Amino acid sequence: MAVTRRAFLTRIGQLGGYGAAFTFMQQLGLLPAMGVTHEQAKLRKVPGNGATVVILGGGIAGLISAYELGRLGYRCTLLEARDRVGGRNWTVRRGVKIEFTDGFTQNCEWEEGNYQNFGPGRLPSIHTTMLGYCRELNIPLEVEVNTSRCTLLQSDKLNGGAAVEQRRMINDTRGHVSELLAKSINKGALDQDLTSEDKERMLTFLREYGDLSHDFLFKGTDRSGFKIPPGAGKEDPTAIDPLPMHALLDADLWQGLLSEDAIDWQATMFQPVGGMDLIPKAFAKQLGDVIRYQADVQKIRHDHEGVTVTYLDCKTGQTVTIKADYCICNIPLPVLQTIDADFAPDVREVIAAGAYDSSSKIAWESRRFWEQDYNIYGGISYLRQPVEIVWYPSARMFTPTGIIVGGYADNESGTPFGDLRTVEAKISASRQAIELLHPGHGKELTRPLYVNWGKIPYALGGWLSDYSGKSIQRLLEPDGRIYFAGDYTSHLSGWQEGAALSAYRSMNQIGIEVEKKRPDPPFSSSAALS
Amino acid sequence: MAVTRRAFLTRIGQLGGYGAAFTFMQQLGLLPAMGVTHEQAKLRKVPGNGATVVILGGGIAGLISAYELGRLGYRCTLLEARDRVGGRNWTVRRGVKIEFTDGFTQNCEWEEGNYQNFGPGRLPSIHTTMLGYCRELNIPLEVEVNTSRCTLLQSDKLNGGAAVEQRRMINDTRGHVSELLAKSINKGALDQDLTSEDKERMLTFLREYGDLSHDFLFKGTDRSGFKIPPGAGKEDPTAIDPLPMHALLDADLWQGLLSEDAIDWQATMFQPVGGMDLIPKAFAKQLGDVIRYQADVQKIRHDHEGVTVTYLDCKTGQTVTIKADYCICNIPLPVLQTIDADFAPDVREVIAAGAYDSSSKIAWESRRFWEQDYNIYGGISYLRQPVEIVWYPSARMFTPTGIIVGGYADNESGTPFGDLRTVEAKISASRQAIELLHPGHGKELTRPLYVNWGKIPYALGGWLSDYSGKSIQRLLEPDGRIYFAGDYTSHLSGWQEGAALSAYRSMNQIGIEVEKKRPDPPFSSSAALS
Repeated sequence: MAVTRRAFLTRIGQLGGYGAAFTFMQQLGLLPAMGVTHEQAKLRKVPGNGATVVILGGGIAGLISAYELGRLGYRCTLLEARDRVGGRNWTVRRGVKIEFTDGFTQNCEWEEGNYQNFGPGRLPSIHTTMLGYCRELNIPLEVEVNTSRCTLLQSDKLNGGAAVEQRRMINDTRGHVSELLAKSINKGALDQDLTSEDKERMLTFLREYGDLSHDFLFKGTDRSGFKIPPGAGKEDPTAIDPLPMHALLDADLWQGLLSEDAIDWQATMFQPVGGMDLIPKAFAKQLGDVIRYQADVQKIRHDHEGVTVTYLDCKTGQTVTIKADYCICNIPLPVLQTIDADFAPDVREVIAAGAYDSSSKIAWESRRFWEQDYNIYGGISYLRQPVEIVWYPSARMFTPTGIIVGGYADNESGTPFGDLRTVEAKISASRQAIELLHPGHGKELTRPLYVNWGKIPYALGGWLSDYSGKSIQRLLEPDGRIYFAGDYTSHLSGWQEGAALSAYRSMNQIGIEVEKKRPDPPFSSSAALS
Repeated sequence: MAVTRRAFLTRIGQLGGYGAAFTFMQQLGLLPAMGVTHEQAKLRKVPGNGATVVILGGGIAGLISAYELGRLGYRCTLLEARDRVGGRNWTVRRGVKIEFTDGFTQNCEWEEGNYQNFGPGRLPSIHTTMLGYCRELNIPLEVEVNTSRCTLLQSDKLNGGAAVEQRRMINDTRGHVSELLAKSINKGALDQDLTSEDKERMLTFLREYGDLSHDFLFKGTDRSGFKIPPGAGKEDPTAIDPLPMHALLDADLWQGLLSEDAIDWQATMFQPVGGMDLIPKAFAKQLGDVIRYQADVQKIRHDHEGVTVTYLDCKTGQTVTIKADYCICNIPLPVLQTIDADFAPDVREVIAAGAYDSSSKIAWESRRFWEQDYNIYGGISYLRQPVEIVWYPSARMFTPTGIIVGGYADNESGTPFGDLRTVEAKISASRQAIELLHPGHGKELTRPLYVNWGKIPYALGGWLSDYSGKSIQRLLEPDGRIYFAGDYTSHLSGWQEGAALSAYRSMNQIGIEVEKKRPDPPFSSSAALS
C-alpha cells in the first residue's frame, strides 16, 4: 500500500526537524555531503490556498515567514510594535535615537556614512539561508574581517601590561606546544601511542608546525613578528623573541582568542555594505502593507479554529482585533511574558522561565588610528579588563573616521563590567580599554553610544541565556495553532540563521496542517520533497 | 667636536640599511616598538638640486625612484622596454595579448570586469610602504581573503582521495596534538620541564585549545564541521568525526597549509579594486613623460662623472643615448645579463650568476561554482598533485562569473608540473586539479590563460631563486654611479614592498653622494633624521 504523502511528511516532521531531514536528503543524494547547513532545501513549498496567518513581531523569523508564506499564497499580516522591523537587527546612524526602558536617551550624531550594527554584526559564509536572502534581495555584501593578526591582546600579567600582537600569542603558543610534544616523543613517552614510523613523521611535522629549530626547540618564529624586520640592507631579518609559555598561560587570554576558531567565526565572514539593517529593510520593501507598524500586541486567544490577536495601534491609540487561521509568534520571551495570552499551562511555564542575557556594545567615532598607526584593519583585540573586547570596523576601511567598538558583553550580569553602576562608568571603562591597547589614542574617541539589549523596549534582552535549547524544547511544537519562531528556538541562538531556520520549521509545520485539510493523493517520493 | 651630518649619515648607511636604522629610530622613540616595517620613515628627503638620474626599468622600484626623486628636485628619465610599466605587476584583462619568448601567443577574451593579476596578487597590511602609496595615489583597496576555512585539501592518501575542508585539517590536527601533549603531561613525561602548577594550567589550556573531552581525549570538534548541523529541530548538533592523525600525516599537505601562517600571508590582506596594475598606472600618470616607453636598453657605460645609456627606441627604430649623473638599474638579472655593460668584474660575476625561478599561474573564467555550491569566497585550496594550488578570487564576489587560478608554481623547474612538456598538458592538469576538488565542475572552466614568467620578454623569470640575499649582497652597494634596485636586492624577494625598500636604499645612497658635494653644516641629531 502506498504511503500517503501526509503520513510520510508527518513522520519526517516527527523525526524532529532538520537533523533527520538533512541526513535523509544526503542519502537521497540531494545535498553535497559537507558539514554545513543547506537549509534552503528545507523549506517545503506547500501552497497556502488563502489560509490566513498573523505574525507577531518583525524580527528576522517573522519577516522571512511573512515573505515566504506570502509567496506560497497565504494571506499574512505582520504586527510590529516598533516603527521599524528587524528586531535586534538594528543599525544606528546619525539621527537615530536610542531610548532605554528606564528613560535614558542617547542621540547618534556620527558623521554621514558611519554606522554601528548594535545587534548581529556578522554573516558567516556557512549561513547559507541568510546569504541566500542577501543574494535574492540584492543586498551588497563585503568581507567582514573577523580575524586579523595585527590585533592586540592585553593582560596585566603579560609583557608588563603592554599589549602584544595577536600573531605572537597564536604562533608562540603553537611553537611551545610543538616543542613540548616533540620533547615527549623524543623521550619515548608516547611509544605506546605511536608507531615508530608515526613518531618520525610527527617529529618532522611538528618541526614545521611549530617552526622549531633543527633540534626541535622553539626559539621564536617570524610568524610572530620581527626584532629586525626584513629590509633592503645587509642585515638578515630576525624573529621577535618568543613569549615564554608560562607568561602566555598567566595572561589567561585564551577564552577570547579561541573564539575565532568557532565554526561560525571562521573566514570567510560577511556584512552588508552600509549596515546589517539593509536585510530587514529589503524584506519590508517586499512586504509593503503586510506589515502593520507600531502595533503593540496586548492579547492573544486561540482555539481549534484559529487565533485572535488584539493590539494597540500606537499611532491612533485605537485597539484593533485581528483573527487568523494560524499564528507565528516571533516575540522575544521577556516581552511575551508581559502579554495576556491563553497558552497551555506547559507552554506558559516555559515562556515564564525564559531568561535572556543582557548583552551590550559600546561604540565610538574616531579617526582610524588603528589603521593608520597600527596596521589593524578589522578584527578583534582582547583584554583581561572589565571591557574584554575591542572590535575594529571592516566598513569603509581607509576613510578618515570610523566606528570602533570598545566592549561587547555577551551578558553583563555578574561581570565586572556589569557591576559598573552607571553608563558613564561603563563608557569610561571602554575608553580605558582602548587606551590600554593604543596608548595616547583614548582621547581621540568621541560620541560614544551604549546599547544594552536588556534595556531596549520590545527586546528586553540580547538572547536566550540557555543556549542548549533544552529549556525551550516545548516551543519547537505549536500550542494549538500558535507556532513559536525565533533564534531562541534553534541551535543557532543569537544568529539570524537560527531565526531563519526556525521560521522554516514553523512554516513546514503549518504546511503539514494545511495539507491535512486537502484530499489525500497517493504518495510518490519525488513529490514528497518538492 | 660636532659630528658632521655627512659623517653621521655615512655611518648609518654603512651599518647596512634598515635593520640598524630601525633599531636606532626605535631607541629615539620615533617608531612604535612593533615587529613590522615602518619604512616611510626611512626615505631621507635629500634635495636633488637638479642632479640627473636615468632609471632603467619601470618596475615598482623604478617607478618609486622616479616618483620620489622627482619630488626631491632630481631630473629623472625612466627607460621602460615595454609599452606599459609595472614589470611583473601585470594584470591581464579582455583584449590583452600574452606573448612568450618562444612565440607562443594567447589572447584574453574574458568578460569585461574579470581580470587576473599574473604577478603580485597580495598586499599584506604590514607592507606599509606599498599601502602608503595606495593611500597617497588614491588607489581603492579591498580585502584579499587569503585564508578561508571552507577551502579544500586533496591528497590521494586522505579520505579515499576525496577533498576535505581545510577547517577539518586545521582543527583536527590541533585536537590530536593537544591530546597527545595532554597524555604526555599526565604520564609525567614533562615533569622536568614544567612545574606542577604549569602542568595543571597547561592541561586546562590544552583542553580548550584542542577542544578535548573532560578526560583530555580528542573525539572531534565542531570547529571542523558537523555530522548533524545545528538546525531548528530537537536534534542536538553533532561534530563531524575526526580524521585520524596518521591520515593527516599521510596526506602530506602541510607544506601548503602552513603557508597561511607566514607573516606576509596573515590577515588582513588587500588588493586594489580592479587589478594590481592600478598601482603602476597611478605612478605612470604622475610621472607623465618622465617615462620613455618601448625604450630597450642596449648599452651601459659609466665613469666617475656619470652614466651613459644607449637604448633602442622600438617605436622609431632609432638608437638614442642619454647621459645622467646617476643611474638606478631596475632591470631583472636575467635581462641584465644580456646587456652590454662595463660593470666592475665582481659586479659582473654576481649578475651572471643570478638565477631566477620560472614561476607560473594558470587562470580560468567560470561560473562561481565555488561560491554558489561550496561556500568558498576567496582563499586557497591545496592538493598533492602536479597542480598544487587552487586560488579563489576575492574580486567581485557574488557576481555570476569569476577568475579562478588552478596552479601557481613558485618554480616549475624540477617539479611534476614543470615536467609536463606542453602548455596543453599543463592546462589539462589544472582542470583536473579543480575537478578533483570540485567533482563535476571541471567542465565549467573556460578560456584558460597560462603565464610562465620565465618566458615573458623583459622578465625571463619570476624572482631570484636564492632568497637569502647573500648571493647578491654586492649589489646592495653601487658600482660607481650605478645603483641596483629591485625586490631581488631586498629580504622581501618576490614582494613589491621589497622593491619599494630597495628603491629607498638606492635613493638614500644617492642622497649621501649628493650631499657630499655640498658645504658641510654642523650636525644636529634632529636635523639628521628630517
